[in-house]
Amino acid sequence: MDKFKKIGIISRPGNDQLESVIKALFSVFKPHDIQLFLDETVPSSMHDSYPVMNRDEIANIVDVVIVVGGDGTMLHASRSLVDYEIPIIGVNVGRLGFLVDISPAQITQAFNNILKGQYQTEKRILLYSRVVRDAKILFDGMALNDVSIHVRDAIRMIEFETTIDRKFVSRQRADGLVVATPTGSTAYSLSSGGPIIHPGLDTFTLVPVCPHTLTSRPIVVSADSQISVSQVADTETHARIALDGQDTFNIIPGDRLDIMRHRKKLTLIHPADYDYFQILRNKLRWNEQP
Amino acid sequence: MDKFKKIGIISRPGNDQLESVIKALFSVFKPHDIQLFLDETVPSSMHDSYPVMNRDEIANIVDVVIVVGGDGTMLHASRSLVDYEIPIIGVNVGRLGFLVDISPAQITQAFNNILKGQYQTEKRILLYSRVVRDAKILFDGMALNDVSIHVRDAIRMIEFETTIDRKFVSRQRADGLVVATPTGSTAYSLSSGGPIIHPGLDTFTLVPVCPHTLTSRPIVVSADSQISVSQVADTETHARIALDGQDTFNIIPGDRLDIMRHRKKLTLIHPADYDYFQILRNKLRWNEQP
Amino acid sequence: MDKFKKIGIISRPGNDQLESVIKALFSVFKPHDIQLFLDETVPSSMHDSYPVMNRDEIANIVDVVIVVGGDGTMLHASRSLVDYEIPIIGVNVGRLGFLVDISPAQITQAFNNILKGQYQTEKRILLYSRVVRDAKILFDGMALNDVSIHVRDAIRMIEFETTIDRKFVSRQRADGLVVATPTGSTAYSLSSGGPIIHPGLDTFTLVPVCPHTLTSRPIVVSADSQISVSQVADTETHARIALDGQDTFNIIPGDRLDIMRHRKKLTLIHPADYDYFQILRNKLRWNEQP
Amino acid sequence: MDKFKKIGIISRPGNDQLESVIKALFSVFKPHDIQLFLDETVPSSMHDSYPVMNRDEIANIVDVVIVVGGDGTMLHASRSLVDYEIPIIGVNVGRLGFLVDISPAQITQAFNNILKGQYQTEKRILLYSRVVRDAKILFDGMALNDVSIHVRDAIRMIEFETTIDRKFVSRQRADGLVVATPTGSTAYSLSSGGPIIHPGLDTFTLVPVCPHTLTSRPIVVSADSQISVSQVADTETHARIALDGQDTFNIIPGDRLDIMRHRKKLTLIHPADYDYFQILRNKLRWNEQP
Repeated sequence: MDKFKKIGIISRPGNDQLESVIKALFSVFKPHDIQLFLDETVPSSMHDSYPVMNRDEIANIVDVVIVVGGDGTMLHASRSLVDYEIPIIGVNVGRLGFLVDISPAQITQAFNNILKGQYQTEKRILLYSRVVRDAKILFDGMALNDVSIHVRDAIRMIEFETTIDRKFVSRQRADGLVVATPTGSTAYSLSSGGPIIHPGLDTFTLVPVCPHTLTSRPIVVSADSQISVSQVADTETHARIALDGQDTFNIIPGDRLDIMRHRKKLTLIHPADYDYFQILRNKLRWNEQP
Repeated sequence: MDKFKKIGIISRPGNDQLESVIKALFSVFKPHDIQLFLDETVPSSMHDSYPVMNRDEIANIVDVVIVVGGDGTMLHASRSLVDYEIPIIGVNVGRLGFLVDISPAQITQAFNNILKGQYQTEKRILLYSRVVRDAKILFDGMALNDVSIHVRDAIRMIEFETTIDRKFVSRQRADGLVVATPTGSTAYSLSSGGPIIHPGLDTFTLVPVCPHTLTSRPIVVSADSQISVSQVADTETHARIALDGQDTFNIIPGDRLDIMRHRKKLTLIHPADYDYFQILRNKLRWNEQP
Repeated sequence: MDKFKKIGIISRPGNDQLESVIKALFSVFKPHDIQLFLDETVPSSMHDSYPVMNRDEIANIVDVVIVVGGDGTMLHASRSLVDYEIPIIGVNVGRLGFLVDISPAQITQAFNNILKGQYQTEKRILLYSRVVRDAKILFDGMALNDVSIHVRDAIRMIEFETTIDRKFVSRQRADGLVVATPTGSTAYSLSSGGPIIHPGLDTFTLVPVCPHTLTSRPIVVSADSQISVSQVADTETHARIALDGQDTFNIIPGDRLDIMRHRKKLTLIHPADYDYFQILRNKLRWNEQP
Repeated sequence: MDKFKKIGIISRPGNDQLESVIKALFSVFKPHDIQLFLDETVPSSMHDSYPVMNRDEIANIVDVVIVVGGDGTMLHASRSLVDYEIPIIGVNVGRLGFLVDISPAQITQAFNNILKGQYQTEKRILLYSRVVRDAKILFDGMALNDVSIHVRDAIRMIEFETTIDRKFVSRQRADGLVVATPTGSTAYSLSSGGPIIHPGLDTFTLVPVCPHTLTSRPIVVSADSQISVSQVADTETHARIALDGQDTFNIIPGDRLDIMRHRKKLTLIHPADYDYFQILRNKLRWNEQP
């Protein structure tokens, strides 16, 4: 497709399969009038082929980014690219992911089709989260999957109070709380008992982790909600915030964790035959009969 | 408020408390320049006071309808009124409901405020569902809460296939399947293990009832989805469809149950201090600590 | 083994695979000094080979019974044989079951080993259940898996009260209640959210089906408990009892369902390499990683 | 009762209510020919009244120990007393516990009845757990509730393999695993989705914490099982063991956690009207209808 003239490639610390996947990408694009740019995350053994740039430079030049790796690679790349409004295509290195849905064997066909304009475009929300102490923001960031608040030393539970749009929602004792986007509904949220949410929805799911009371249940609210979670001040144990399970920050009782929709959506590009339900079945064996 | 000049009252087979609640409503409206119209469901002992009409006549005349009863009364009234686009106010007769949120003791204050224009307006989706056999619609109707497909004789499980927007989703063996609106998420869907969905969302939740496989989990999809469920043809057991657990129809293998958003939304009117989370806590003891 | 001189074969309405499985059994036993007796459930096409008897006659003569079929065949056979204290061996016709754990391909080796005395013996409890109305027993029977009380017409829930050893336990509203033996813990109890119980334990698990309250959870009690469940008298809906999901009886409010341990245990004979956890993984994909 | 001539009192860091509760105990025993002995955990302000001893001295002298505090106090005391085979009576300081079931208001009546021999005696299993590295025991101890293996830094999940009686059971990825006694079934095990187990049973329940696979379910096995859990060696994240959530030990991949029944049972003494199901309902609101 004419739109994709300049393509960036982002990856992660490499292995043999990673290099062969990236070389397969090089081969696909060679015949076309396309400029490739390599992110610094691409293994250095491949740096001779095309210009290597840092993330910001890449993001300012390219029309689309291909992320090669696993879902974790994609989570990180998404957060760094969403504000540039550059669409992302995920390629896995041997194991299908929810976000990296093109497998090595499909690369040639999938990208030839994409270059012809045959693909699906999909928008996904991210959440923005910040920790506020004494009216100052101490920590903030985005997440494509989830933000969690979790007991830090894994022994005692924490007690926290949740508000939505400044209305009191609940006071709970639990190991933690996950607030997940639809994309994150198949990650930690699911392990904690949350429902699967179709990724096209604009919602946040609040899922308690190992709640102390029998009456706890997950709740799904609009992504336009402003969610705030505060650890109750007289609790002895301290807690930790994690964005996509990757960036962490230790909070103290009284800190307020705010969660809201990030102002921009991520654009994912999928092959034309992309089928979310199929990925659900393949990745999770969801509803599969033995 | 000037808008509410003609008010309908719908109720259900009565008891003493029902009559006293309706009389309290009469007293509130008497001083105002308001015409009251009674539905035939209002106990006959009260028919002298104001004109009595059937549902269609009521719906064609009034600006708003007050439903006095329980959530079941409200479910039934909603289905009969939604197409007339008449807002509904729910008054309970002694036990708070999710939909009948004004209690007898609050009647005077709540309605005086409502007449002054102090209230909240809320839109809720309904679902439309139909059973198709040999390209003919054998049964159809709306539901404010849910449509369920359920094994009829309570011994064997049924096997059914689900598609969304004509894409295969899953083939499952279970006692049944509930497809719930957000309003219905706190009813049978919740008993079956589904999440709580904020009523402002436009979603359907698919929740298997006693699924045979360990990998089953509820999924939440857009209310713009067209969901179809068919009982697999070689199953011996027959199943039943139920709309809001009230209207039922016996299906046979091969019948197709279609579920989609009803084209109109229901308008609910709540007191100005209405708080959904508070009702969750009061009705379900959600997240309450013993 | 010397013990097994007279062997009965029980089966079910047949198909081609069933006959070939039974013929394989004939071939195994022919070289040995063993008398075979066929139950009337063995397909009539095979009745020429060995004497055919009814269940009681079989039970009075043989040293061991081989049940050929699925878990359902085994449930029925177990109930009819337990009081005769005859050990049972389960052979499946193509699909591994929890109870029919010898597959067609393993027949020759498994039974040659069993005849040499190389096998595992395992005891399983059954439950005895009876419906009492006006001090009379209207219905009773045994179950190897479970007894369930379930709403009959699948629309409204039932309300019931449970006592254990005459102590009040709970009053619940739900679609039903399953009381399962350890053997039944992987059947309907599991679909309803119950835990897996190792079959060697002497316990009953009480699992509510689609409970109305958020605070319901399964409970495991001693099989020496005397459990009684009564539908609350002012409920409009009627309920049904089912033993192993096979024998049913319609109850009315006020009837009392008693559940206790059956006075005899069933003896199962397994191949020497029988491994319960392996069957759990194979049948349920329990804990399997995609 | 003649048996209880020498009574020990164990407590915890005090508050006003604690002292008044202990004084109430002093008053009950004064008229009787009973010797009281105070553990060092009794607040020092009360040390004038009776001889103060360390735990071992207490354990060697007394006929019964009264533990005043919460369930946490009781967990700790149980572990230190079980091997002396001294029965324990639990008294709470204002909030009913599962183990401390005599409330301040009931002290006089309950203990007068106990002294008359009117009480219930109950045996509870404890588990013994040890961490083995290179054939050496690095850490061991008892637990009345549970032993858990849990990811240490709360971000990544751990992968572990479980065997029972040296047979492979499962390989799982999760935040952790709880192995609970029946007493512990209402603690962390319940928060993680485990069933309630009647405390009179001799079982262990294995409950995964936030499992990564949809097919995970709790399993209940005999307390005669020898359970071993090993973190898979190539996992990057480290894990922590906790006994009753109190004593902890950091493990590394390859360490083996063994869990088995402790050779002695704890004896609890309850008032004559003690009712486990009532405590379930009061503490957890189990099955309570709003």
